[in-house]
Amino acid sequence: MPWVYINEIGQHEGQDVTLKGWLYNKRSSGKLHFLQVRDGTGILQCVVFKSDVPPEQFDLADHLSQESSLIVTGTVRADARAPLGYEVSVKDLQLVHTAESYPITPKEHGVAFLLDHRHLWLRSSRQHAILTVRSAVIRACRDYFDGKGFTLLDAPIFTPAACEGTTTLFATDYFGETAYLTQSGQLYAEAGALAFGKVYCFGPTFRAEKSKTRRHLTEFWMIEPEVAFMDLAGDMDLAEDFVEYVVQRVRREQRSHLEALERDMTVLERVRKPFPRVTYSEAVELVRQAGFLIQWGDDFGADEETAISKQFDRPVLVHRYPTECKAFYMKADPENPRLALCVDVLAPEGYGEIIGGGQREDDLETLRAKIRAHNLPEESFGWYLDLRRYGSVPHAGFGMGIERVVAWICNLPHVRETVPFPRMLERLRP
Amino acid sequence: MPWVYINEIGQHEGQDVTLKGWLYNKRSSGKLHFLQVRDGTGILQCVVFKSDVPPEQFDLADHLSQESSLIVTGTVRADARAPLGYEVSVKDLQLVHTAESYPITPKEHGVAFLLDHRHLWLRSSRQHAILTVRSAVIRACRDYFDGKGFTLLDAPIFTPAACEGTTTLFATDYFGETAYLTQSGQLYAEAGALAFGKVYCFGPTFRAEKSKTRRHLTEFWMIEPEVAFMDLAGDMDLAEDFVEYVVQRVRREQRSHLEALERDMTVLERVRKPFPRVTYSEAVELVRQAGFLIQWGDDFGADEETAISKQFDRPVLVHRYPTECKAFYMKADPENPRLALCVDVLAPEGYGEIIGGGQREDDLETLRAKIRAHNLPEESFGWYLDLRRYGSVPHAGFGMGIERVVAWICNLPHVRETVPFPRMLERLRP
Repeated sequence: MPWVYINEIGQHEGQDVTLKGWLYNKRSSGKLHFLQVRDGTGILQCVVFKSDVPPEQFDLADHLSQESSLIVTGTVRADARAPLGYEVSVKDLQLVHTAESYPITPKEHGVAFLLDHRHLWLRSSRQHAILTVRSAVIRACRDYFDGKGFTLLDAPIFTPAACEGTTTLFATDYFGETAYLTQSGQLYAEAGALAFGKVYCFGPTFRAEKSKTRRHLTEFWMIEPEVAFMDLAGDMDLAEDFVEYVVQRVRREQRSHLEALERDMTVLERVRKPFPRVTYSEAVELVRQAGFLIQWGDDFGADEETAISKQFDRPVLVHRYPTECKAFYMKADPENPRLALCVDVLAPEGYGEIIGGGQREDDLETLRAKIRAHNLPEESFGWYLDLRRYGSVPHAGFGMGIERVVAWICNLPHVRETVPFPRMLERLRP
Repeated sequence: MPWVYINEIGQHEGQDVTLKGWLYNKRSSGKLHFLQVRDGTGILQCVVFKSDVPPEQFDLADHLSQESSLIVTGTVRADARAPLGYEVSVKDLQLVHTAESYPITPKEHGVAFLLDHRHLWLRSSRQHAILTVRSAVIRACRDYFDGKGFTLLDAPIFTPAACEGTTTLFATDYFGETAYLTQSGQLYAEAGALAFGKVYCFGPTFRAEKSKTRRHLTEFWMIEPEVAFMDLAGDMDLAEDFVEYVVQRVRREQRSHLEALERDMTVLERVRKPFPRVTYSEAVELVRQAGFLIQWGDDFGADEETAISKQFDRPVLVHRYPTECKAFYMKADPENPRLALCVDVLAPEGYGEIIGGGQREDDLETLRAKIRAHNLPEESFGWYLDLRRYGSVPHAGFGMGIERVVAWICNLPHVRETVPFPRMLERLRP
């Protein structure tokens, strides 16, 4: 009998097949049991008629505990009432393992309890849907850059120096030296762009932030493209095109999971080019009109970002922040040196910044002066300055945080459900 | 004038185009300069005739330093002698930035010097070829599992406990607790397999090994599939099919880069199913026949692995090692409990182990006893034991180290060139 997965069941109508999975839920009447069986690719109703199986198997079906593992053989039948359009009439039911009393029941559990049982919570249909969307988002991101001729160039995790200050770094002893866990692969991606033209890195990044917000993880994945001979205008076009591609592809591929999450699909359908673009100064006006007290020069927090993004029905690009809001490597706008040639992309619906990027300073002496002005150790940046010594070129890029994008696409209240095993302040387990 | 990349040059024969790149090399005669221009996608000869450009541009071409950045406009012409089949007749040459005296010259440099200048060494054609192959290997790996319905499930980097002993762990302070950097995502992938059926994780892993060998990095990337209801036989089939797919696809896609690396392509062409399979006991005999003194029960080192793999013209699967050679989570062979249901895949040509995997212990009490016998802290593995409490199933998987596979496919003497910024004992920079 062929072993098939539930997401392929439609190819086997009328045939006898074997399923291997777990009992997700169960209803019974006197003469039949309805077993909801999950196998990781879907949930299927398997119907056990008293007359179709030996008495001990019928009795087994009656006493199966939630999450017990089993092997079911039966005939695939079309059934318009079933969520997948099919169910299985069981001919043989074999128990693999009887689950102990399962801790996660249909009743409401607190978040701490569920996170403590994350290794089991993954099996719940809602978590399954979110993490399947995550997998699809990551595939779309990679396919986008691979399809445009970018070379994947993994940045190192261990770094000898901080990219953006040292207060939020995780450190480790590295054979007697101190190594820091990367906060961004960007500086290395810049070296890559000057060698390969168009590169991206994609890996975990780390921030030892003590903040407990719905947007922060200590460990999160970031994709960072970097392109030689690209300026801020090209960077904004790339970010816009990329976000449209990822959202539209995931919307098409993951419709059933997104609908299961009760996502308003019309919001995602609207994520089409061109996105609105405002300068930082225009954004300050929007924030003030929303009733916030803010000075020109202040950075935006989560509330201000929400106030800005609420004005638009799709992601908005905010460009040219004051230089003091941004990192040392940002190039100043030649038309107004108080401004950085940078861009943030804010997602709608209050999700805030999903992308930060810009054009990099490419002049050796200007960059050296900025490193000094930021009190960064110049000797650690010698190699980075080399990129401005040997054939410097205008270049730009950005970083997009995967978890925030998944939270937005799925419309989740917190990023913690967008990653299989979230790491936060006070959360290192399981 | 359209800006084109060198790897698209063939689509523009007869047209005027603009290239943006760096001077890789140069030859001159009185009336013309041959500029080898690289742009990250290829190297193209641009010919500057004295009569085609203003005198100051001809003079500029004469004095360009290696790695200076430039913008070239000219006509694409077919030329059978050129490596790409085309060259460009230059009409306009603009300097972007004059490179200082470039430290990497065609003369031989020591490895330490080149690694100190890794951010520039990436521009050399050999390094460029290797890292392009790496990018293609990673794409092939992901496409293989995505195409077979596996869900990507990223394992965490921060873990509270060691998977395979504590002597080779990097540790960090995690808000007052000690967190360790992951050595393998496997335990988490097991939780994923029981939730999603078929999963893989793919990320950096870390080993604080003090060994200085040609096979070891402290930070390396590993892809780890895990499948519920799969046994050792299925695991071996999967590993074999996967390795064949990756090697054959990369061989086809990366022929020009592999030939530039002077790779013997016939070796790669032979990597076809079925691969030879030998038991550990048979492998011990092969090692003895090769003249080594080895006891049944000893693990294989690099030399023994080479002795085994030399007997075969393609990768060899060595299965059923003694349990004491392997980690606590390996399931014992019911037909001989001294043996583990495990498999290593050894690459030919002395590259040794590229894959390690096997069937996992799925019985709660047996696993608990093994955790105790290995002196591991049982409380740290409570969640892992849960996977055997709630619907335990047979399951198996493996891990493949990307850097070793790239080293083998490219036929490199050392893994350090297979990663953009290698991290080794005494190597944390740049």
